[in-house]
Amino acid sequence: MTESSNRDSKIAVGVLGATGVVGQRFLQMLERHPWFDVTWLAASERSAGQAYARAAKWRLATPLPERFAGMPVSTAVPEGAPRVIFAALDSGIARELEPRFADAGCAVVSNSSAFRMQADVPLVIPEVNPDHLKLLECQSWRRKSGGFMVTNPNCSAIGLTMALAPLERHFGLEHVVVTTMQAVSGAGYPGVASLDILGNVVPYIANEEEKLESEPRKLLGRLNGSRIEDAPFTVSAHCNRVSVEDGHTESVSVKLRRAAREDDIIGAWREFRAAPQELALPTAPAEPVVYLDVPDRPQPRLDRDRGNGMSATVGRLRRCSVLDWKFTVLSHNTIRGAAGAALLNAELLRAQGFLK
Amino acid sequence: MTESSNRDSKIAVGVLGATGVVGQRFLQMLERHPWFDVTWLAASERSAGQAYARAAKWRLATPLPERFAGMPVSTAVPEGAPRVIFAALDSGIARELEPRFADAGCAVVSNSSAFRMQADVPLVIPEVNPDHLKLLECQSWRRKSGGFMVTNPNCSAIGLTMALAPLERHFGLEHVVVTTMQAVSGAGYPGVASLDILGNVVPYIANEEEKLESEPRKLLGRLNGSRIEDAPFTVSAHCNRVSVEDGHTESVSVKLRRAAREDDIIGAWREFRAAPQELALPTAPAEPVVYLDVPDRPQPRLDRDRGNGMSATVGRLRRCSVLDWKFTVLSHNTIRGAAGAALLNAELLRAQGFLK
Amino acid sequence: MTESSNRDSKIAVGVLGATGVVGQRFLQMLERHPWFDVTWLAASERSAGQAYARAAKWRLATPLPERFAGMPVSTAVPEGAPRVIFAALDSGIARELEPRFADAGCAVVSNSSAFRMQADVPLVIPEVNPDHLKLLECQSWRRKSGGFMVTNPNCSAIGLTMALAPLERHFGLEHVVVTTMQAVSGAGYPGVASLDILGNVVPYIANEEEKLESEPRKLLGRLNGSRIEDAPFTVSAHCNRVSVEDGHTESVSVKLRRAAREDDIIGAWREFRAAPQELALPTAPAEPVVYLDVPDRPQPRLDRDRGNGMSATVGRLRRCSVLDWKFTVLSHNTIRGAAGAALLNAELLRAQGFLK
Amino acid sequence: MTESSNRDSKIAVGVLGATGVVGQRFLQMLERHPWFDVTWLAASERSAGQAYARAAKWRLATPLPERFAGMPVSTAVPEGAPRVIFAALDSGIARELEPRFADAGCAVVSNSSAFRMQADVPLVIPEVNPDHLKLLECQSWRRKSGGFMVTNPNCSAIGLTMALAPLERHFGLEHVVVTTMQAVSGAGYPGVASLDILGNVVPYIANEEEKLESEPRKLLGRLNGSRIEDAPFTVSAHCNRVSVEDGHTESVSVKLRRAAREDDIIGAWREFRAAPQELALPTAPAEPVVYLDVPDRPQPRLDRDRGNGMSATVGRLRRCSVLDWKFTVLSHNTIRGAAGAALLNAELLRAQGFLK
Repeated sequence: MTESSNRDSKIAVGVLGATGVVGQRFLQMLERHPWFDVTWLAASERSAGQAYARAAKWRLATPLPERFAGMPVSTAVPEGAPRVIFAALDSGIARELEPRFADAGCAVVSNSSAFRMQADVPLVIPEVNPDHLKLLECQSWRRKSGGFMVTNPNCSAIGLTMALAPLERHFGLEHVVVTTMQAVSGAGYPGVASLDILGNVVPYIANEEEKLESEPRKLLGRLNGSRIEDAPFTVSAHCNRVSVEDGHTESVSVKLRRAAREDDIIGAWREFRAAPQELALPTAPAEPVVYLDVPDRPQPRLDRDRGNGMSATVGRLRRCSVLDWKFTVLSHNTIRGAAGAALLNAELLRAQGFLK
Repeated sequence: MTESSNRDSKIAVGVLGATGVVGQRFLQMLERHPWFDVTWLAASERSAGQAYARAAKWRLATPLPERFAGMPVSTAVPEGAPRVIFAALDSGIARELEPRFADAGCAVVSNSSAFRMQADVPLVIPEVNPDHLKLLECQSWRRKSGGFMVTNPNCSAIGLTMALAPLERHFGLEHVVVTTMQAVSGAGYPGVASLDILGNVVPYIANEEEKLESEPRKLLGRLNGSRIEDAPFTVSAHCNRVSVEDGHTESVSVKLRRAAREDDIIGAWREFRAAPQELALPTAPAEPVVYLDVPDRPQPRLDRDRGNGMSATVGRLRRCSVLDWKFTVLSHNTIRGAAGAALLNAELLRAQGFLK
Repeated sequence: MTESSNRDSKIAVGVLGATGVVGQRFLQMLERHPWFDVTWLAASERSAGQAYARAAKWRLATPLPERFAGMPVSTAVPEGAPRVIFAALDSGIARELEPRFADAGCAVVSNSSAFRMQADVPLVIPEVNPDHLKLLECQSWRRKSGGFMVTNPNCSAIGLTMALAPLERHFGLEHVVVTTMQAVSGAGYPGVASLDILGNVVPYIANEEEKLESEPRKLLGRLNGSRIEDAPFTVSAHCNRVSVEDGHTESVSVKLRRAAREDDIIGAWREFRAAPQELALPTAPAEPVVYLDVPDRPQPRLDRDRGNGMSATVGRLRRCSVLDWKFTVLSHNTIRGAAGAALLNAELLRAQGFLK
Repeated sequence: MTESSNRDSKIAVGVLGATGVVGQRFLQMLERHPWFDVTWLAASERSAGQAYARAAKWRLATPLPERFAGMPVSTAVPEGAPRVIFAALDSGIARELEPRFADAGCAVVSNSSAFRMQADVPLVIPEVNPDHLKLLECQSWRRKSGGFMVTNPNCSAIGLTMALAPLERHFGLEHVVVTTMQAVSGAGYPGVASLDILGNVVPYIANEEEKLESEPRKLLGRLNGSRIEDAPFTVSAHCNRVSVEDGHTESVSVKLRRAAREDDIIGAWREFRAAPQELALPTAPAEPVVYLDVPDRPQPRLDRDRGNGMSATVGRLRRCSVLDWKFTVLSHNTIRGAAGAALLNAELLRAQGFLK
């Protein structure tokens, strides 16, 4: 065991919203993390004071780690919380609670949508726009208490943006039309009623299309001084819920600014490496984008766990008769699309010296 | 019982490929048909000679009609067959068998893809292009034996085209980008393996995108003398299989040639009536296109049976930031998308004097 | 239209708990009922005052009947309610509300479990124990206001009891071991979370095994003056939830008191007819128990709608090496197991002169 | 890396039927096995000569191991095969092929049902009846060529028998009534048609009940010289297929020969350890039987992977009013119920000196 995995030298972290679906993923991914040590779990008033095993209805396929089972659930206030907070809160609650933690000096690494589009809050995928972290210096919390807030994108925006990033870089993007087929775990627990989704498709997810149409443009935007200029492409999204437990599948058509050949595009995906790979961040996948050269992939059941759930898997690149090219992209919505996204953000923050 | 439903005055019909999923729908829909009387069932050599109940593995939720259970399955040859044949064959077999029946003087009302795009074979949705039946006069079978062949579109093309038809008529179509989420019954029986689709999405259906990109253009094309000029729009299709028993859902973006307001588009759908409604064909739905003004519909489990499975249901009309408008359309793939489509074609043929 | 279907001569009825899954089935089944006319809908305070279409999230595959869409939802109090009330309430609420309606002179035809096992409340399946309605005369409500209460069994008990009734009558029952595989609609809406049941089995349904072990004994019990003597057999139940929308499937082993041959047992099921069939009650199935002589049936998707959802379907009768015989029984849990059960009870009540 | 994991010192093994669902599990589990090195893959004539990646449609959620992708698929004959053969064949083919390999001197570790009940072939669960391996000495193959054959039980029998073994040992078994809810992967690929199982239950699996009623009695039987005396209890089985990918769930009622208290039974399960644990076999789970003390477990989606898929998980122990006790047991059908079962058998064989 190396020094960095020694518990004493780890950074103490807390999880806000620890009992939900994403909160559980945080605990699963943090159980043996070499850099972070979970010392504090918080949830709603209803759960506070109970042991975690009692407060949470654990829904993951790996057992609840023993060390969290007996940990008490704290009230969601900054007093007594560690300085690094992973937040997995509903948007409405996040809007109220997260600023309090940043204000109290915490590094808030948030998965919620509440502040993603706020001008001074970086919305980051470490492989895509690590430089946006510079926005942190503009946050008033930072100046006041040392606290700050970083966010990761929506679970359907992240896979799409990872597939778009190499295209934007190499060929320029002009238009994107995307149709999602999203897993039920994206709606939390209890979330989607079984009567709504068994043998069914629900062609609507509240507020999802708006996120998918705006977040990729901020993520692929250019940092200009203290603000992000959105990337100059448009996204049109159709969001559907399907009968899948985990893994969001997306059918994508794109119009590029510069001509591209099939091999160039596939090459751009396969060669895509960035800061997390260079820094060998613990949760970084070896290949951020995996391209599969078979006709019927990616599929959520077979491909969502690639790169331990941190890779986006792309397939079926072919000509689009309306725009230029079309393809399918898949990513794990509660790993790369939520807890893993925040965790990789935290690892990048530490590597860049923001966490101590 | 009116004269037309008197069995003696009904037109004798046969079903080719009677044991498959679509063949079973034919029998279900023809059991009490006022104009047609099923007197002949045919299937592969393996089934020939057996009683239908034994040859077919009946998979519908209504019991196998008693009168078909004991009917013998005939060999698939024109000798002894009635003059009107509903064909529900795999494409490869259809290519070989259907011409034999047309050549022998039969009216072949086919659901297969084998001859849909052949220049002298009408591809018809009675609400959309009933005039294309004039092509029948160009068929060499017609001149030789009196036989002919008419086809209906692919199960994913039909719902889309029904939604597009009022748009093309009122506003002109320029581009269509469509992503399908198709039911497993579209693949026949045994068809899709459960290990492939439980909790999964398969982003590929062989040859399906090609059909969806070409058939709507022929259907909405203009009859010019003895040929169809394809309608001048392009379709780009993404076809996916999802974990749904019946009902194909499609997310559609369209670019129109003329400006349209939301109310005009919804009005065009709601007011859409055509030959089958005017002729009061027995299988015609009162409303070919139903528009639902609620945020999360249509859904396959709740809406596929509208109009006894013969209506296309549309919802979620909203602006598309890349093309002009976007919406969701749903139709029942083995009723309006297969057996019901052929049956309505046959009813139109009779109403126009082609069947006696 | 016969006199009995004339609206003026119909009996006005109300539905308590009209917005839930069972409430919706009541409306679907009552839409065109020849004897009953729904004039009053009630639900929780939250819904009261709204139009039904707005208050209810309609989840059935047939559209919400137009005539109910605009009907206002009333507060759940007897004042202003008609004299015949179908009740589809959660047990806790039923315990409080149902007696108020009976006390106010209403005939309460209840689907809830609250009073099923109360000594003076008949628990009735019209085909099984219509004579138990005599208990109504013992109810204090009856004497006081003319009101009364009748109940139908739990959704998993009813199919089992219909299959057991001919066995008890002909051969005597000693022991029953039953394992259920129950549909999600039995838990109401939203009910079972999709994350709990997709690709899964949940081997527990709160309070269900207790009902399944006690209700069949009361149903098959003997009316002795003013009380029911439970039938002298024991039931051991294992209740599981499976990924099925509608239809409860049950694997049953039975020990009989008298020797029985296979043909005798199948004959007992097939010949089973009772009061509802003799009286030709509108909702009565022609065959209460359908026996299928094929190896892999009944199946929920294919058999739940037999007899318009009012038949119990049995199959796979074979020797049990531990008890005597074993078989599979299936019934539709929200039709024969809930709304249809209550409706048939009401029809029996009217036929016996209890409703005016 | 220890010496035993050095490739040169490993035992070369082959997989017969390598392209099927169980064959794939073998490769997944053998990829990094410390004792065995897969050097030979065989499948049907259709696949022979192709690279494995081309011949097999890989259906597991982990990628096909690189080292097997390019390995050629051999013809299924003993010539050129290694001396240890894992067999994952359909029963009919196994009946023909497996004796050829044993005859040629191979150790055939078979998952098929063909020879399980043959008197001189041991049917083994290493935790339950390791002593039955002594039967190998009675096999004529052994004497002739040194070859032999060992089998593991059916996928539904193994979880049941693991739960029964501690009960038989401590309290004696008299009767067992079991209802299974089996996953689709148990039927291989393509196996169960999606139209048969989506939203459905199929209450029949060919030949399964017979296996489940006989195999546990041989497994728990007593070795008496050169034969096994079946254990003196009876099993009555109801086998159902449900909409689950992996993991067989079983509702079990048992009658014991000696009185048992709840705590004693749970203790018997929790303390159950046997040869694989004592020998620390690589694939042995730490706890062969895990008892969960929560009301709604085990569940296939959440519990099938316990002990890396090698544990049987039990829950819901409670009184049975017909027999004595009832409970639910779950095990992973393609790991503990197939490939993992055979692998553990092979590890036991090596530990006992049967493999060199």
